[in-house]
Amino acid sequence: MTRSLSIAALTTLAASTLAAQTPNAPARAAQLHVGSDTVAGALPPVTPGPTIAAYQATVDRIVDAAVKDSTAWKRMAELTDTFGPRLAGSDALEKALDWVLARMKDDGLQNVRGEPVMVPHWVRGAESAELVTPTRRKSLTILGLGGTVGTPPNGITAPVVVVSDFDELQRRAADVKGKIVLIDAPFVSYGETVMYRALGASRAAKLGAVAMLLRSVASYSMNTPHTGGLRYDSTVARIPAAAVTVEDAMLMHRMQQRGQPITVTLKLGAHVLPDVPSKNVVGELVGREKPDEIVIVSGHMDSWDVGQGAMDDAGGVAVSWEAVKLLKRLGLTPRRTIRVVGWTNEENGARGGQGYAKAHAAEAAKHVFAMESDNGAFRPLGMGVTASDSAVAILRQVGALLGRMNAAALTLGGGGTDVGPLAQLGVPVGEPEVDGSKYFWFHHTNADTPDKLDPADMAKLVGVIAAYAYVIADLPEPLPRGTPRTSSR
Amino acid sequence: MTRSLSIAALTTLAASTLAAQTPNAPARAAQLHVGSDTVAGALPPVTPGPTIAAYQATVDRIVDAAVKDSTAWKRMAELTDTFGPRLAGSDALEKALDWVLARMKDDGLQNVRGEPVMVPHWVRGAESAELVTPTRRKSLTILGLGGTVGTPPNGITAPVVVVSDFDELQRRAADVKGKIVLIDAPFVSYGETVMYRALGASRAAKLGAVAMLLRSVASYSMNTPHTGGLRYDSTVARIPAAAVTVEDAMLMHRMQQRGQPITVTLKLGAHVLPDVPSKNVVGELVGREKPDEIVIVSGHMDSWDVGQGAMDDAGGVAVSWEAVKLLKRLGLTPRRTIRVVGWTNEENGARGGQGYAKAHAAEAAKHVFAMESDNGAFRPLGMGVTASDSAVAILRQVGALLGRMNAAALTLGGGGTDVGPLAQLGVPVGEPEVDGSKYFWFHHTNADTPDKLDPADMAKLVGVIAAYAYVIADLPEPLPRGTPRTSSR
Ligand SMILES: [Zn+2]
Ligand SMILES: [Zn+2]
Repeated sequence: MTRSLSIAALTTLAASTLAAQTPNAPARAAQLHVGSDTVAGALPPVTPGPTIAAYQATVDRIVDAAVKDSTAWKRMAELTDTFGPRLAGSDALEKALDWVLARMKDDGLQNVRGEPVMVPHWVRGAESAELVTPTRRKSLTILGLGGTVGTPPNGITAPVVVVSDFDELQRRAADVKGKIVLIDAPFVSYGETVMYRALGASRAAKLGAVAMLLRSVASYSMNTPHTGGLRYDSTVARIPAAAVTVEDAMLMHRMQQRGQPITVTLKLGAHVLPDVPSKNVVGELVGREKPDEIVIVSGHMDSWDVGQGAMDDAGGVAVSWEAVKLLKRLGLTPRRTIRVVGWTNEENGARGGQGYAKAHAAEAAKHVFAMESDNGAFRPLGMGVTASDSAVAILRQVGALLGRMNAAALTLGGGGTDVGPLAQLGVPVGEPEVDGSKYFWFHHTNADTPDKLDPADMAKLVGVIAAYAYVIADLPEPLPRGTPRTSSR
Repeated sequence: MTRSLSIAALTTLAASTLAAQTPNAPARAAQLHVGSDTVAGALPPVTPGPTIAAYQATVDRIVDAAVKDSTAWKRMAELTDTFGPRLAGSDALEKALDWVLARMKDDGLQNVRGEPVMVPHWVRGAESAELVTPTRRKSLTILGLGGTVGTPPNGITAPVVVVSDFDELQRRAADVKGKIVLIDAPFVSYGETVMYRALGASRAAKLGAVAMLLRSVASYSMNTPHTGGLRYDSTVARIPAAAVTVEDAMLMHRMQQRGQPITVTLKLGAHVLPDVPSKNVVGELVGREKPDEIVIVSGHMDSWDVGQGAMDDAGGVAVSWEAVKLLKRLGLTPRRTIRVVGWTNEENGARGGQGYAKAHAAEAAKHVFAMESDNGAFRPLGMGVTASDSAVAILRQVGALLGRMNAAALTLGGGGTDVGPLAQLGVPVGEPEVDGSKYFWFHHTNADTPDKLDPADMAKLVGVIAAYAYVIADLPEPLPRGTPRTSSR
C-alpha cells in the first residue's frame, strides 16, 4: 500500500539521500493521521464554477445511494474470509483474483479480464525467535520481514546489541560484529520510521552484524508484530531480518540498560522461488461518448501473508469496485470509460502497476485520471492528488461537491503505489484521504481483519470514489496534464 | 484479579441464579470503566472532621514524595522482565516470590517472610486449533481456558456450531451433540460476559458438545486471545475449552451466516499435576503503638501463563510495596503495623488469600483494614470499599484528603479476591479505583506487559495507597466494623 511504501518506492528512498531520515523531516503519513474533519495541508475550499456545479444533483444522488448500501463491506469480508491473506506467488491470491473476475462478470461489468504479469514468489516458511539469556527462555513474537533471507536450519544464536537509531548504530559500530542488531526505534511517522525496516539489515550487515531485529513499525501494539518489505544493499551481505513486537523490543532494551547480556536464537525459513504468473483484474463501465478515454478506480488485491489483508487492501478493491457497480445501478454512464482495477503484487514488487503501465504505455495519453484507494477504507475526508495546477483547480471544485459529507478536502501529493508508473507517464493520479488514525495499528499484521473496517464508512467512501470518477469521466474536457502542483500556497 | 473473578468467586456466581446473566443487570465492572475524573457511583464529597483534617499536611507530604518517584514502575518492570508470567505451580512464580523476599529485606522492611500455602498446578501444554473447512486451512489463535482438560493427542476434529449466547445455545440444543460449540458473545461488561467463560463448557457439554470455543472476553482485540479460569459443573462431562480471538469468532460466525459448514481441529495439551507448595510474601512497617493491629496493602504475585503479568498484577504488588517503602523513607511510622502482602495463586485457586485468612483467623479482629490493588495500577481515582456505615463515613473523609490529586472518590463494593476471605471474617476491605478503560484490552493476554502501565500514574497510585494506609493505621481508633454498607443513598 501507499503508506507501506513498495519495494520500488524504497529503492527510490534508499537512493534519495539522508534527508528522509532527518528526525524532523515533514512526513506525509503524519499529516494523514487526522481524527477530525480538519485535514492538515488541505487546500482552502472553493465554490465550483457552473460546469462542475451542474453535477451537484448527480453527486448527491450518488452519495445518497452509496450510504444506503453495505455491499462493499460484505464483499470485502467474503473475499478475505474465503481466501485469507494473499501474498504474491500464493495460490490464495490467484484464486482470489479468479473469484473477483467471476463476480465482476456476474455484476455485468464490461470487458472483464485478467491482464497477466509475472510476480515474485517469496515464501516465509517456519520462523521463531527465542530469548535465551539473560534470565529465562522466552519466545519472541516475530514476523520475518518481506524478502528476508532465511537462517541456517538450526538458526543463528548470537548476542544482541540494541540501538535506538542509525546514529547509535554507528556509534556502536565496534560492538556489532558477529552480533544480532535490534533496532528499537520508536514510531514517529511511517515515513520516518519505515527507513529502519527498509535499510536496517544492510546498515547492520555493513558493520558485521549476523542478523537484524526490528521494533515493529507500529503506532500501537498489543504484542503485535508487523511485517513489510526490506531492501538489501547489493554491496553487503544479506542477513536475516525480522520484526519483533514493540513490547519485546522494549523488553530487550530494558535488559541492555540493566547491563544484562542478551542472547537470541533466530530461525527463519524464508526463501525465494521462481517468479510465477499472476494478473491484474479489470472490469469496465464503458463510456458513452469517448470509450477509449479512461478513468481508473483501483485497489490492490495482494497482501502480506498475515491476517486477512482486509484493510490493506481488500477494502480498497471493494470500494472501487462497488463505486462502478453503483454508477451502473443508477444508470449513470459517463462520457468516458471507468475502469476498475484490482492490482496484483503491490506489497513486494509492484509488478502489477508497473506491468499495467508498460502494457498500456501507448494509451497512456488516454488515461484521464487514475485513483487508487490504499490508505484503508476508513471514513473519507477528501482526495489527495498528484496533478497539474489546472487539474488541481478542477479537482478542488469536484471535491466541493462532497462538502455535505465532509469529504471536500483536497490535498497534494496523493496517489497509490500502483498508479505511480502511470503518474510517471503524465497521468494525473489520486487516492482518497481517510481517517487513518488507526492505520498503523493493523498494517501488515494478523489484526488486519474485516472488523477493523466499518460498513458505514466504507459506504461513504464508495460515494466519494464514485462521485470523483463519474464527474471526471463525464466532464466535457479531460483533466489537463502538466507538472504536478506540489505546494498548497 | 478482582475483575477476572477467581475460581472461588465463580463458584459463588455459578450458584447465584441467572440474575447475573440478565443482559441489563448492573455490572460493577462497567462502572469502573471511566475515562474521566467522574467516578460512577461514588459517594458525594465530604469535608473531613478535625481528627482526619489534621492529617492533610502529612497526606500532602506523602503525595508530593510519591509523585516524584518512579521506583514502583521500575520494580514492576524488573520483576516481570526477569521472571515473566507466573502461574501457580511454576518455577517462575516461586523464583519471583523469593526475589521479592530478598528485595524486601534489602529495603529494610521488618518481619519479612513467606507464609506457606499449597497451590494447584495446572499446566497448559502445547495447544493449537485449525479451521479445516469451509474454504482454507487457517490456524486459529487460541488460549486454552485455565483449568481446561486436554484433548486426545490427535485433537478433536468436529463441526462447529456458533451461538451468540446461552439462549441461542438452548434453542439449538438439538444441533449441538458431537459438535464443537463456539460462543460468540460480544463483550458487554466483564461481569456479564465472563459468565460464558466460566460456565460455557459445562452448558455445552450438557447438550452433548465435545468441546467449547469462546470469543475472548475482551473490550478490544488485535487478534488477541484472552485466557482465564473456567468452572466445570461436576454433573456433566468435562470437555476441552479454549478462547479464540474476537476476530476469529466473528470470522466463524460470518461463515455460519453464509451457510458454510465449519470444521475445526482443536488440540489442547492441558493437564493437572499434584498441588505444590507456594507462599504469600509478607513484609512490614511495624506500628509504633499498636504493632499487633494490622493494615494490609497488597497485590497478587501470580499471573496467568501469558504475557508478563505486569498489569495483572505485578503493578499492584509494586505500588503496595512501594507505598510502605515510601512511608519508611519519610519516617512516617503509624500507630499500627502496615503489612504488605504479595499473594500467591489469585488467578486459579485463590489459595493465597484463603490460606492467609485461615492461618490468621485468630488475629482477624486485629486486622483494621485490608486493601488489594488488583484493578491495574492505572491512574487512581479513589477507593472502593466494603465496610460498615460508620467505617465508610471515616473512609470518605480520608478520601477527601486526596481531592488535590482527583482521587477523592469513594465507592462501595470494593476489595480484591485475596482480601475476600478477610472480609468474610469481618475485616473492612478496599481496592483502589483506577481508570480501567483499557483493562480488558490486556487482561490475561500476551499484551499484558510493563509498557501498558505508566510510571507517573503508578507513582500517584503509590501516593493514594500510602495515604490511606498511613491515616487508617494512625487514627486513634480502629475502623469500626459491622455489616457492609451497600447503597450510596
Ligand atoms: Zn496497501
Ligand atoms: Zn488480578
